[in-house]
Amino acid sequence: MAEEMAKQIDVGVDIALIHYPVLGKQGEIIGAAITNLDLHDIARTGRTYGIGNYYIVTPYAEQQTLVREIIEHWQTGHGSQANPARKEAFSIVRLAASLDEVIAKTKKVYDVQPLIMTTSAHEQAGEINYRAARKKIAEADRTLLLFGTAHGLAPEILERADYALPAILGGTAYNHLSVRAAVAIVCDRLVARNDT
Amino acid sequence: MAEEMAKQIDVGVDIALIHYPVLGKQGEIIGAAITNLDLHDIARTGRTYGIGNYYIVTPYAEQQTLVREIIEHWQTGHGSQANPARKEAFSIVRLAASLDEVIAKTKKVYDVQPLIMTTSAHEQAGEINYRAARKKIAEADRTLLLFGTAHGLAPEILERADYALPAILGGTAYNHLSVRAAVAIVCDRLVARNDT
Repeated sequence: MAEEMAKQIDVGVDIALIHYPVLGKQGEIIGAAITNLDLHDIARTGRTYGIGNYYIVTPYAEQQTLVREIIEHWQTGHGSQANPARKEAFSIVRLAASLDEVIAKTKKVYDVQPLIMTTSAHEQAGEINYRAARKKIAEADRTLLLFGTAHGLAPEILERADYALPAILGGTAYNHLSVRAAVAIVCDRLVARNDT
Repeated sequence: MAEEMAKQIDVGVDIALIHYPVLGKQGEIIGAAITNLDLHDIARTGRTYGIGNYYIVTPYAEQQTLVREIIEHWQTGHGSQANPARKEAFSIVRLAASLDEVIAKTKKVYDVQPLIMTTSAHEQAGEINYRAARKKIAEADRTLLLFGTAHGLAPEILERADYALPAILGGTAYNHLSVRAAVAIVCDRLVARNDT
């Protein structure tokens, strides 16, 4: 894994897409199912912005098997021949059972404790603005951005944050972006080079 | 349509997602199939940023029927009851057979000729940066942002641009964002209120 990553630009930022524990419609704790396009869109966005690792976090064995099959199809299977650009995007996709496993992997591969930044469609404790977040990322050894599926990250995940990013507001009261769109916007705000 | 739009914030910007004419893998002109999640993700992004109208552009009758069914499901069907936020997002989704029809509708509803801005993953003639584009949008009566499916907008569409937006670069050589991610990033760059 380390060798493969060395070949490509890595801005020192990783993404984890949490499928458990997340919030359901009524604010209850649920586990969300894997969405194929979450793997594709966020891998493509991540690779564009030099994200080092994109972790799909799910504790469910059958869902993990599905994720492994999708990764394999695009990394070594038919998809890798049919679409080399998609193969390259999938080179940053990893599987993990929990946030703790993501942190453990980061410590093992990079020998650092990642700075954890959480995202939410609602106001959080410990928010810093995007300008301040860019500075923190530049100072950190490695930063881990956490995104939630379903109705967002559970409190027990939000509590793990070193810093929280403000909700993405577009000037309206509507705040129901897809997680695919939210990741794209956050990457652009935090690591874009030509945003003027 | 005009009455329904008056209820919500409209920043004077519309989006058209072109399914024909676009480029295929070898640079040939093709018509792309509708992707359900393009409707959902871009409607949600558009509604977040105050986009007035999100046009799905396809000349194919069967594909138009599919688009109408999806819109109806979320606007008046079961989906509108199950998910009011999604109903609100779909309130900006429109169907058009061609770019010319989009422009004609804009003239009819708003009595103005829209300023046309094109997007591409590659360098285009007539590019202005995002800062300049924000200024042009502020000065224009109404702006129409064009996005392509498949491998991007055909030359005959790119030629219709008043201005072209630069490709979204993330600091790497990889430039294969999904159109869903590209729309989110462009909206954030052009109309976001809290991007610091």
